[in-house]
This record gives sequence, C-alpha cells and structure tokens, in this order.
Amino acid sequence: MPLWEDKIRKVVPYTPGEQPKEAGIIKLNTNENPYPPSPAVKRALTDLPDTDLRKYPDPAVSELVGALASRYGRKPSEVFVGVGSDDVLAMCFLTFFNSKDKTVLFPDITYSFYDVWADLFRIPYETIPLDDAFRIRPEQYIRENGGIVFPNPNAPTGRAMPLADAEKIIAANPGSIVIVDEAYVDFGAESAVGLIPKYDNLIVVQTFSKSRSLAGMRIGYALGNEKLIGYLNDCKYSFNSYTMNRTTIAAGCAALSDEKWFQKHVGKVIRTRERAEKEFAALGFRFYPSASNFLFVTHPEKPAAEIFEELRKRHIYVRYFAKPRIDNYLRVTIGTEEEMDVLFAALKEILA
Amino acid sequence: MPLWEDKIRKVVPYTPGEQPKEAGIIKLNTNENPYPPSPAVKRALTDLPDTDLRKYPDPAVSELVGALASRYGRKPSEVFVGVGSDDVLAMCFLTFFNSKDKTVLFPDITYSFYDVWADLFRIPYETIPLDDAFRIRPEQYIRENGGIVFPNPNAPTGRAMPLADAEKIIAANPGSIVIVDEAYVDFGAESAVGLIPKYDNLIVVQTFSKSRSLAGMRIGYALGNEKLIGYLNDCKYSFNSYTMNRTTIAAGCAALSDEKWFQKHVGKVIRTRERAEKEFAALGFRFYPSASNFLFVTHPEKPAAEIFEELRKRHIYVRYFAKPRIDNYLRVTIGTEEEMDVLFAALKEILA
Repeated sequence: MPLWEDKIRKVVPYTPGEQPKEAGIIKLNTNENPYPPSPAVKRALTDLPDTDLRKYPDPAVSELVGALASRYGRKPSEVFVGVGSDDVLAMCFLTFFNSKDKTVLFPDITYSFYDVWADLFRIPYETIPLDDAFRIRPEQYIRENGGIVFPNPNAPTGRAMPLADAEKIIAANPGSIVIVDEAYVDFGAESAVGLIPKYDNLIVVQTFSKSRSLAGMRIGYALGNEKLIGYLNDCKYSFNSYTMNRTTIAAGCAALSDEKWFQKHVGKVIRTRERAEKEFAALGFRFYPSASNFLFVTHPEKPAAEIFEELRKRHIYVRYFAKPRIDNYLRVTIGTEEEMDVLFAALKEILA
Repeated sequence: MPLWEDKIRKVVPYTPGEQPKEAGIIKLNTNENPYPPSPAVKRALTDLPDTDLRKYPDPAVSELVGALASRYGRKPSEVFVGVGSDDVLAMCFLTFFNSKDKTVLFPDITYSFYDVWADLFRIPYETIPLDDAFRIRPEQYIRENGGIVFPNPNAPTGRAMPLADAEKIIAANPGSIVIVDEAYVDFGAESAVGLIPKYDNLIVVQTFSKSRSLAGMRIGYALGNEKLIGYLNDCKYSFNSYTMNRTTIAAGCAALSDEKWFQKHVGKVIRTRERAEKEFAALGFRFYPSASNFLFVTHPEKPAAEIFEELRKRHIYVRYFAKPRIDNYLRVTIGTEEEMDVLFAALKEILA
C-alpha cells in the first residue's frame, strides 16, 4: 500500500450513461435531444476568429449571462453559468449545503448524482421516499434540514409536481437553500423561475443539454437572487476562473438566439412522446405521465432487465437502473419518429 | 440577514487578470501566447459536425487522453484532462490534499490560486519563504506535511528550479503527493514528467493555455502513475462526468497534432524574451532569469505601482500584485516583437 494512501479522498463516482463509439446505435439512454441545435450554432462556431483562441475567455461570461437574463426576465447578477447543469449543481452543493450538522434532503428515487455530490463533499443527507405513484410529497420536506434539492420533472420517473407543491417546500424552508433542478422542465413542467423574486432561498437550475440540443457543448445555468448567485460565483472563482471557453459561449448565445428552433423541436419531442405513450400502452407497458423527454416504463410480464438486454442486442440502448424500487423499470429517451418506429418494432418482437 | 446564512460556504475568490473588452489594448497581463494556435485548430472546429453537438461528449475524453499519452510517452491511464490547469489543480487539491491534520506546503511567493483552493476546501496549509533571490529551497520541504505543490518555473517570478532539486522534494516525501505545476515549462525549464515511473507520489500538471496558444479553449492535464490518476478520475466523475466538450476535444487534439507549429512559436517567444531581457536591463530594471513566457521586473528608482498605472494610461496592461515582498515588481508577459517595441518606447518615456 502506498504511504500516501491516507491523504486521498476516496469516493464511488457517478456512472454516466454509455456513449457508444460505434455508428448505427439507436441511442435512447442519456436523454439527449434527437434533433440538432439551431444552425446558428454551427455559424457561430465557424465564425469564431481563431486568433481569439489564444486569449482567455471572459471570466464573467457576460454575453451568455446577459442573454440568459433577458430570456428569463432576470438581472445578469441573478444568473450563474457552468459546464453543464452537473457543474452548476456540484458548485451549488459545495456552496449551499455547508451546514455543520443538519442533513440535506432529496427524494429516494431521483437523479443519481445527488448522493454522489453529497459523498464527494462529505455532506450528510437523508432521502425521502416518493409515494407509490412516484410523487414527491411536499409535506415530508417540512422539517429541519441543511438544504433541499429535487428535480422537477423528477428523473428518472419523468413525473412533474405542480408548481404549488414546489412552492410549499420553498416557502416552508426559509432557513435552507432549496434547489429546483429543472433539467427537463421545457418538455412540460411548470418552472419555478417566477418564484425567484418571492423567495430568497430558491435556486433554479436548467441546462442546454436537453431542450436546446447542446449536450455536446456542456452549458448549464442557475437562476436565483443576487446574493445567492454572488456566493455561488465566489466558490466558482475559487475553483476555476474560466470554466466556459470561447466556443461554448459563442454556441450558447447562438442557441439562445433562435427561440423559434427551440420551440419547434421541443414541440416535436412532446408530440413523439404522446405517440410513444400510446404505443407503450398498446404493448402492455405501465407508466405515469411524463413531463420530460423520456418515459419510465415497466411491463407486468417481462422483466425490465431482460427487455434491456434484448434491446441492446438489437443496437437499441435505453437506461436501466439496478436500484431498489425501480429495478423493473426502463428509462427510454424520446427519439425521432423513425427511431421510435425501430424501438416499437423491436419491443413487439421481444414481447411476442 | 437571511436565515440560511450559516449554511453558505464563504470564501474570498481568486481574482483573474483583467480581460479588457476594448480593442487596441496591448495585453501583457495574463501570460497568453501572442501567437494564434495552429491552423489545424480552426479546421477542426469548422469540420466538427454540428449534428454531433446534440450528443454528450466522450466522458473519458479518450481521443485527447490518447494523444497526450503518446506525446509524453505515458499510458492513457496515466493521463487526466480538465478545463484548464486550474480545473486540474482544483481537482488535485480536492483529491490528494485530504489529510486529516497535516498542513500542505507551498512557496510564499507563488501562483496565487493555491491558497484560494486550500481555503475553498478547508485544507490547512503553510507557506515556505523563497530565498532572497526568489529560489525554492528543497531542504525546506523535507518535513512532515499533508502534500506539496509548487510551480516550475515558479510564478510570478519566472524562476526555474533544477530538476535535481525538484526530485529532492519528491524523493523525500514518499508519504505525500507532490504536485509539480508546469504551466510554463515549455518555455525553458526541465520537466518532471520523466520522473513519473520512479516516484508513485508525483503528479505533473501542464496546460494548453500558454505554450499551445489555447487559453480560450481551457485545456489542462495531469500526468502521474495510474493509481493516482484513477483517484483523480474518481473525484472528477463525482463532480461532473463531462467536463471537456466536443469542441474542446477537437481543438486539443488538433493543437497537439501540430508539433512543428508549437516548437516554432515557443522558439519565437523565447527569442523575444531574450531581447526583452536586454531592453529591460538597458532601462535599469532588475530581474532574475526567466524560464517562462514572462519577466518579473523591478526598478530601483520608479515604484512598480506607478509604472503599472503609467503603462495602463497608454493602454498597455501588465500585472501588478500588491503583496508582501513583491509589491515593487511587475509581471510582464512576452508579447510579439511589435508589442514589445511599443512597451519599451512607453517605458523609456515613463522613466525619462
């Protein structure tokens, strides 16, 4: 054993969904948008003067922060940006979940990165069970805590909670920061952004990776009152001054400038989800309504793990979590109409 | 005072060098390379299929990691990549400086981010004074500690230490991780990379921001034995699975593929530094030899703070640190020959 072993921070890392390198895979495993980003993004990348690449980017990322502030009707001082919403959430855990003795709360079935961040930063936490219909019960978050985080819609269930329920949690916890993780909100849930002026303990996190088709660029952001965003920036500037590089800033601004493209393709995903719900139901799958770009489905006869393997053999990747309460479910990203045709043909075969 | 105030991690952030938005500034304040990156970088960005941007990048960054491994004669499992060497160093502090009770050591005059990272992660530390000629004394690092970090060449002094001295520190501390921060090594210092097979406690950190003209892309890397790189990756995957986006990976690989461009422009910077040394000396400035792309100069008559302000009035930005022992020094990045012409003309005027 090396002599330095006791000085190492040891953790069990998060395992991201597989990113296969082979072509010809139907990839419904990481909730990417099946449609490309606005052509404005490609133009922005092509137009970027390469002579600028030798210089550091703007550490304050003013252009993208300003564009996001306009888009959401907030001030630039109420906007924080990072390398995907994972970076933003990691920074939020580090900055806001710093109670000496109180536990942070999040649902038992939720984004599987929350407990990983808590472990990384040695933050004590407790999970609160969803009810049997996979719903978050607001009344269970009304108790002493060191902070609260939940996604809306929740992942991997896809279930949205009414904004009034989210507000109950925020309003009942003025002494803690409440993070609403809205990675999937554009596909059908009510955003908490409008509550920011009312509650100084609210942080809303969103991402360009899903509805804005830019998972490959890594852009996430947080909205909240100026004071919280200030603390978040202090920690960010204490970690890495320049997290957003020049191509990222250019691509982010370009994507945000094309609201029409965004609305159109979000609409397409929602329509395909509605079709997919019908097809899954026709095949006997059960699921709750989804407000996201995926469905969380279970079959009364065929075990999820088996379906997962059978699909994989056919080069169709979906996500399976071998975890308590959800180990008979599959999370299936909404792809293009053509990808869903192939998926349903395969499922018919598998279930026959 | 908000009720959540006690749950916030409060820190005094690092202040990066100014990135002015106006044109026409001669920017010698953040040690950027005055020459653009290889044209291969621009081609790689232009050729990047925008349809891929909707998909997450490769979390393992295999292409860039593989290219770096080949370049430095190491295995891919001995290479870690991050969003600039600041991200890499932040991750190293988090992962390796995790002793319960021992203090981390670094020089008193050094990269001013080290104490910021230590404060962010609540790592106890102690600074070791450079000698009067701004040299690191290896014998002072032979004592109990929770880890060691130093740059070679050191910043903002530009002084290199002989590899044998660095090795003394590494060899004397088998129970701690020793990080050699080689951000500027390509401009004239001896790299510790060759010592990696010999010492399992060594991490070498380098960057694309200086010698490879890619500050705008944010690419840094660490080299070390497989076990240490494994622990570093565990923490990275516990923070953010995908830190390197698709454009970054493409640009990094392209820059690395053009060794000729790299050698040529590093050579140009070194020749301009040699000329600058003569000109600074002729103007009465004092300085130690620099192995980096900047000079750390002081003038026996004119206070550094005054020269700094006078240069600024003339739209020439250099870096001034109002800190003990170095508050009469200026750190001046080596620019193009033309930029240095303007600098020296201005200095002649200011000192007249």
